[in-house]
This record gives sequence, C-alpha cells and structure tokens, in this order.
Amino acid sequence: MSLREDGPAALDWAARYLERVDGLPVLAQVKPGEIRARLPASPPERGEPFADVLRDLDEVILPGITHWQSPRFFAYFANSASEPGILAELLAATLNAVAFLWRTSPASTELEAVTLDWAAQLLGLPQGWHGHIEDTASVSTIAALAAAREATGGHVVVCSEEAHSSVERAARLLGLETRKVPIDDEFRLDAESLDLTDAAAVVATVGTTSTTAVDPVPAIADACEENDVWLHVDAAYAGSAWVCPELRWSQAGVDRADSLVVNPHKWLFTPMDCSLLWSRKPEALRAAFSLVPEYLRTGDEAESLSDYGPALGRRFRSLKLWTVLRCYGREGLQARIREHVRLAELFEGWVRDEPGWELCAPRRFSVVCFRRDAGDEENEALLARINASGEIFISHTRLNGRYVLRLAIGNERTTEDDVRRAWDVLRRA
Amino acid sequence: MSLREDGPAALDWAARYLERVDGLPVLAQVKPGEIRARLPASPPERGEPFADVLRDLDEVILPGITHWQSPRFFAYFANSASEPGILAELLAATLNAVAFLWRTSPASTELEAVTLDWAAQLLGLPQGWHGHIEDTASVSTIAALAAAREATGGHVVVCSEEAHSSVERAARLLGLETRKVPIDDEFRLDAESLDLTDAAAVVATVGTTSTTAVDPVPAIADACEENDVWLHVDAAYAGSAWVCPELRWSQAGVDRADSLVVNPHKWLFTPMDCSLLWSRKPEALRAAFSLVPEYLRTGDEAESLSDYGPALGRRFRSLKLWTVLRCYGREGLQARIREHVRLAELFEGWVRDEPGWELCAPRRFSVVCFRRDAGDEENEALLARINASGEIFISHTRLNGRYVLRLAIGNERTTEDDVRRAWDVLRRA
Repeated sequence: MSLREDGPAALDWAARYLERVDGLPVLAQVKPGEIRARLPASPPERGEPFADVLRDLDEVILPGITHWQSPRFFAYFANSASEPGILAELLAATLNAVAFLWRTSPASTELEAVTLDWAAQLLGLPQGWHGHIEDTASVSTIAALAAAREATGGHVVVCSEEAHSSVERAARLLGLETRKVPIDDEFRLDAESLDLTDAAAVVATVGTTSTTAVDPVPAIADACEENDVWLHVDAAYAGSAWVCPELRWSQAGVDRADSLVVNPHKWLFTPMDCSLLWSRKPEALRAAFSLVPEYLRTGDEAESLSDYGPALGRRFRSLKLWTVLRCYGREGLQARIREHVRLAELFEGWVRDEPGWELCAPRRFSVVCFRRDAGDEENEALLARINASGEIFISHTRLNGRYVLRLAIGNERTTEDDVRRAWDVLRRA
Repeated sequence: MSLREDGPAALDWAARYLERVDGLPVLAQVKPGEIRARLPASPPERGEPFADVLRDLDEVILPGITHWQSPRFFAYFANSASEPGILAELLAATLNAVAFLWRTSPASTELEAVTLDWAAQLLGLPQGWHGHIEDTASVSTIAALAAAREATGGHVVVCSEEAHSSVERAARLLGLETRKVPIDDEFRLDAESLDLTDAAAVVATVGTTSTTAVDPVPAIADACEENDVWLHVDAAYAGSAWVCPELRWSQAGVDRADSLVVNPHKWLFTPMDCSLLWSRKPEALRAAFSLVPEYLRTGDEAESLSDYGPALGRRFRSLKLWTVLRCYGREGLQARIREHVRLAELFEGWVRDEPGWELCAPRRFSVVCFRRDAGDEENEALLARINASGEIFISHTRLNGRYVLRLAIGNERTTEDDVRRAWDVLRRA
C-alpha cells in the first residue's frame, strides 16, 4: 500500500464524492446502531487492501453520513470544506508536523503566526494581536476563560441567555460559575442588566447560534473596562463576515476585546478543525498554560504556540487556512460571503411575503429564523418530515418559548436553485 | 481549482516528499523568524493558483520543517504518519463531517465506537469500556481529570515526578492541586510514598516520557480502590506496545483503571491527531461535559460523543485509525512494534559495549537513555552538534540531575541502517 499505488483511487473517490453529493440524502437516513451493526466486531489479523476501505466507505459508511458538503445542508451553521482546503489537509497529514515547540516545526509555528496576521487584516482587526489556532471554539473559549481567570482572579463568567452552550461548559470545566444576563427583544444581551460582581469575564457574542444576534459590544466593553473584567468576543460564525466591509457594523467595539474567537471552519471554507483565537493579552494565556519540563527545554529564542492553549501536540492546521486564503484571495472570499447573505435575504423575503409563514428574528447575516403560523407541534412535525425526505436538512431553535425553524446558508456550493428548492420543499410539506 | 485539476499534483507532492524525506536534514536548520521573513506580510487580493502553494511549500516552507517523517527522527517519541492514515485524512477532510451530535454524523460516531472496540481488542484491554477520540493526550487527561473531580469531589491530582507535564497543566486548568510523589531508582512512582489526602485522582504512567518507566499500577490501584480515588493511566506512548502479547507485562493492573489514554498518533502509525480515551465510568465524563441546549436537542436515542470531552465540534478522526488497523492488521502492527523494540535493544547493546558511554535508565520499549561518560556540558554540546548536522535528530532529558541523551525509535520507515548511522554519528561527534 502506498500513496503512489492507492492515492489516485482515494483522490478519485474524493472528487467523485463532491460531484455526486448533491444527489445524496442530506440527513443520514439511518437508525442508531445501524452502521455499527454492519461493521465487523473485530479487527483483521492480516492487513487488507486499501481498496477494501474505499469499497466499505461507499457501501457501509456513506449511508450513515450526514452530508455537510451537500449544497442543501442548511442546519446549524452550514460549514463546508473547499477543495484547496481538502488538499492542504492531505499535505499536512503527509508532513505530520507536531508543533509543540518551535523547533519541532518552525515552519508551521511561523506560518500559523503569519496566517493569523493575514486573517486579521482580511477581517479588519487591530494589528498586533497575538493569534493562534485551536481545534474548536469550545476549546478557544476554554483557553480565553482560563486566561481571564488568571488575569482577573474573578470566578464568574457572564454571558447572555443566548450565548453558546460551550461558554457554560468551559466555565464548568474551569470551576467558574456562569451568570446569564437577559436578552432584549432582538435576542441581544441587555447591557443594562450586566452584573459584574466577582466576574472574571464577559463573553459577548457577535452572531449568536440561535438567531445570529449581535450583542452590544461597545456598551459591554465600557462595563468591562470600568470593572477590570476580561472581554471575550465569540464571533465563531459571524467573524468571517467581516471580510466584507459592509458587514463590519457588527464589529463595533471588538477592537476593545481581550480575546476573540473566529472559526474559519464555519464560514471561510476551511475543513474542520480550525478555530482562531486572538488576544491582546497573550501573557495571560501564557500564565495559564505555559509549563516547560526539562525534556522540552531548548535554547531556542522563539515562542511555542503550545504555551497558549490546552493541547501540547499541535497539528499543522495553518496550512489549510493559508491555502484557502491564497486560492480565494480577499475578493473570492468576499464574493462567497456576499452571495450567502444575498441568498438568505432572498429566502427571508419569500417567507415574509407568504401568508401562513412568519419570520421570528431579525436576519443579520446568512441565517433565517422562521416558522409556520401554527403550533409548536406542527412546526416540529414539519421539520421532521422535511429532514426525513433527505432533500434538505434544516435545524431548529426555541425563541420566546416557541419552536422555530432555522435555515442557515454557508456551504460553498449552495446556489439560488438550492435555496429555492428548500423553500419549495418547506411549502409542500 | 478543483480536486480533479490540482489533486494529482498535490498527491504527487506528497508521494515525492515521502520518497525524498530520507535525504533532508531531520531538524530544520533555520533561525527563529527566518521562515516568517520569507512570507508575504499580507494576503492576496485575488485568488492564486494552487500550484503556487505547492511551489512555496517546497521553496519557503520545507526548509523550516523538522521532518517527523524522516526515518532518522529519534527525538521525543518518534511519531509517524503511515500512507493509509494519510489517505484517510484526505477522505475525512472531503467528507468534512462535524460529529457533535449523533445525527450530524451517525457513521463517524458509530465508527468511532467500533474502532475503539477494535483497538481495545488489539491491545488486550477489558471489554465494555467506553472509548472515544480526543486530539491529544493533554486533552484526554483534562477530560479524565474533570471526570475524576466530578466522581470524587477531591481537589488534588497525585502523580510521580516523572509524569508528563500535561498532568500538571490539566490540573491547573481544572483548578486542582498537583501532588508529586517521589520515584524509585528505576524512575517509577514509589507506591510507598503515595499520599491520597483530598485526592481526586492518581495518574499512573505506563511509559514515562523521560525513560519509558512503568509505574507500579497494581499497587496504585489498590490504594485508589481503598480510598475511592480515580485511577487514570497515561499510556500515551507505551499503550500501543500492548498489541504484542510479550509486552503486556506493562499492562498489569491497567484493567482496574477508571480511565486510560493511548495515542495511536504516537506509535500506531496514525497521523496527528488521535488520542484514545477509554473509561469504565463514562457517566462521570458525561456529568462533567454534557449540557444540551435547545438548538442541539433531537429525539435521537443515540449517544453524542461530544458529551465526553471539552470540544463540541468533532472531526472524523476514527477514519484514519480504522484505515490503519485494517491495512496493517494485527500482524502488521505487531511486526512494526517488534522491529522497533529490537532496534532499540540493538542500540542499547552498542552503547553498553562501548567504552566512554553509559546507559542511564532501564530500556523498557523503544527508547534508550544514555550519555557520554563526561560532564553535562559535553553531552549538551554533543547533542547540539549532532542535531545541527541534520543527519539525525535526538532529544534529551535530565535524570538524577544529569543531562541525558534519548534515542527514541518509532518511525515506520526506520531501519537497522538508520539506527546504525545514528550510532556512527554519535561516536564521530
């Protein structure tokens, strides 16, 4: 088995998958345990040909895949992995760099710094922030809150009721309390209700998961500065939108954050996993994480990015983001984000104009919250029916106690036809 | 840009890299900042051809890569990414599954469970443990200790002075204290000195980072059981050796662990990142991490692996391990591990028989600790000279206050000739 022998078949499988994913049911149409039951209970004694793996990928695994790469994946935030990003992952796995110290992979350590600077420029962020890559926003948030605890000594994390569940998970892991602030009628943190007693950090969200609401960051920053509280901004989804100047209204106040997370694997066409964490107080991250034992000591006067987060071993994740930024350029990224926002706007208009349907939250970016003008049960049944059809996959949330449907656009391959088809499927159902 | 157009060039780059890595300097011969200075300070406005990325990979990035894939990488633990594993990473990036809930990727969730069961069988572990994949042992340890805190209410983590630094990092993150127990004359935790007052967990190491010593797990398990303390076993490196029955002496007592970490990216030829965490008390992991908000609620009666660790978004990591286990089979894995142990034994013999050199710790698996019979400065200078030659890359540790060289064998491509050359280089220097 070798890249020369089996690589072409693997590559062909990958290309063919992307060519046919449009025709596959978006949500996997299997029951729990069904895939498992089709797999052998024990590993083979002797090596098998790689071709058998590819065959089983088609016959056994694929029916159990929910196709995030489908142009009609409209659930959660619709991530997608672009082709330059996919090839970069092949290259990263080939190099297999383990960048826990600078010297164990100088190029990936330095490319990570450069790529984060590039991303900061593309998104219009302040110069000079320290940036590095974590796997997910959950872990970026853990790192940011650990730094906040270190810097402030506080033991409460403050966020809105609409903040992502990973904030509470991170606080619990760190032994911190979570204090939830009410929201206003547009699902934004109500800055008037901020109570910063014993606070280590406020997590402000730009683009909440339910409705993509934008918390009033300038007012939150005022309060944080007055009380010496760390301001962490969670722009995991919406931060990518800042590549378009016309969407930077949502960046107001973010320049005053102590830390910021943006996930290019969400809306910058970079394969999982790639979560960017910037901070203007990197010394607090180092204080939380740096600990150098003898067997890792070197005379190198260069920073090791493992000093800034929970993991020691670090994959060459910057390669895929660097590749995507280069192959698309600023213009290419802007064009895709703009098209997604345009498609969401279009869909929003269809819902608004159709009797029997209602919009449930202001649309800020590429997510529309809506429902049938009917009870929760009917909307819930509608969602189940649609997802069971395999034609599209959408998810839900609950707003003001009501069951609400969400259509999220973010897949690189999504076209106006796909969004129109989603609307047709919804109306038919 | 597409997989069809640019994929063959990327694949050829990868294959060519593996063909020529033997001829490249193992440790990157660059100074801090050198790679960064060769990269543009700003991202491009317009997209660039993928071919430019490949060109820069050769011209700019490669000189800054420390070649973990080189057969003469003998530093730390010598990881390597096998070709089946590399191709599986291409496929995983193509599918781009984000398995935070079962339904968002049933196949990757279930394949992860199956693959962990396969691995448990290969390593001779008890049946029925719950297993999942984290990125690194650092994060697996965080998850295990969070579960221990949840299960016991203790606030001290006990480990030996030779435990990996990630234990102390994890404890600090969780707001727990670390208590270090002295070691015996073979660098094993001295079970007589165990003090379990207020302990949440003991971390026992099978295969310490410095010398691959094996802590007395049965005695530690006795103490943990008596005191209701969680036993976490760190076998990140040495656990892979259990694929060979003759190396399972080091597994004594591990069946009594509450949690266990083994990293196939260390010594099972799986690309970074793949850290396996098993537990016989999965409910404690769930208690530490599960928190399901409305927008993630589904009616599926199936477990979501994000309930067992810090990250919510989960890459399709099981695919590469499953592929490696299939393409190598039990016999293929055993043959490679045995050969590495044989080569380490050979090297150990050469050192033992050569006047002017000494062995510094018992060899248990594929790592040899040794030094010139001379002062620390001379050994340190020797290491620097050798690594600067680019011919081999080895690392060091400190034992009983003395500077000690380490030769670690683990790269799939390492042959007897490579080890012989390492010895020649060392003697010449």
